[in-house]
Amino acid sequence: MARVVVEVMLKSEILDPQGEAVANALPRLGVKGVNSVRIGKRIELDFDDSTVDIESKAGRIADELLANPVIENFTLKVEDEDSGA
Amino acid sequence: MARVVVEVMLKSEILDPQGEAVANALPRLGVKGVNSVRIGKRIELDFDDSTVDIESKAGRIADELLANPVIENFTLKVEDEDSGA
Amino acid sequence: MARVVVEVMLKSEILDPQGEAVANALPRLGVKGVNSVRIGKRIELDFDDSTVDIESKAGRIADELLANPVIENFTLKVEDEDSGA
Amino acid sequence: MARVVVEVMLKSEILDPQGEAVANALPRLGVKGVNSVRIGKRIELDFDDSTVDIESKAGRIADELLANPVIENFTLKVEDEDSGA
Repeated sequence: MARVVVEVMLKSEILDPQGEAVANALPRLGVKGVNSVRIGKRIELDFDDSTVDIESKAGRIADELLANPVIENFTLKVEDEDSGA
Repeated sequence: MARVVVEVMLKSEILDPQGEAVANALPRLGVKGVNSVRIGKRIELDFDDSTVDIESKAGRIADELLANPVIENFTLKVEDEDSGA
Repeated sequence: MARVVVEVMLKSEILDPQGEAVANALPRLGVKGVNSVRIGKRIELDFDDSTVDIESKAGRIADELLANPVIENFTLKVEDEDSGA
Repeated sequence: MARVVVEVMLKSEILDPQGEAVANALPRLGVKGVNSVRIGKRIELDFDDSTVDIESKAGRIADELLANPVIENFTLKVEDEDSGA
């Protein structure tokens, strides 16, 4: 199986209230030293081994169904699932 | 700056309807060969450079505020932000 | 246009770390008196006026693509969009 | 207990790829007649009975920790939990 991981994060200029909430909750946890928390999405797309052009296919999927280009950026990472075989 | 990335995914035995929706939308897009789509979270925690034990701190944050241990697993990845300097 | 709103909430026995984060961030905001924060999804399904059985259709969509029955409950609310006409 | 429900939806001019995915998955489910699917958040804030100004408090929480005003709108609904008593 071949996997492409799509990572979708809000653009840096877009406020992330959910991340702010986590950051503001840290003092209560007694955790110090965190400057910033940003919460995005991580999507695992698993392809049949015989599928070609998985990276460009994943790019189309991300473009159309996973990320909103106005507010989000995404990156693609092809993972080699056979690396441990 | 030191960054720890927390990746939170639903456990494999937990259904992911949002991922199913993306998978079922692919034929309309004309994309073939995708076996499975799983949607999780990716959280970037940025620490002050002077902060120690960032991995264990990130682990506590993930445990308490980012992941639900009943239905989700998480992994931590320490990123070296200075690598390109 | 006819609208069905699907409200999806985690079951009460399922921990909601994201809600916890918001709850724990409130002292920093100076807001007191909140016992509990639970974060769910709200989905607006807009149907053609000519569509029949919109509530049962919405139920099928919720069942298969919006909620995970192991961890979430959902409710349906039919809204009358013409009420202001 | 007094509850305020905060409903957060993407502004109508902001694309919702997750909603698109659900909409595009419907033909596979055999469901017809859906024009649009929009996915937002529904947050239940439960207050102590003795707490005053719960609506304005909920508004501040929504403003700061639940919604991003650049891309999202929110509405508040005060629920009377005692209505069935």
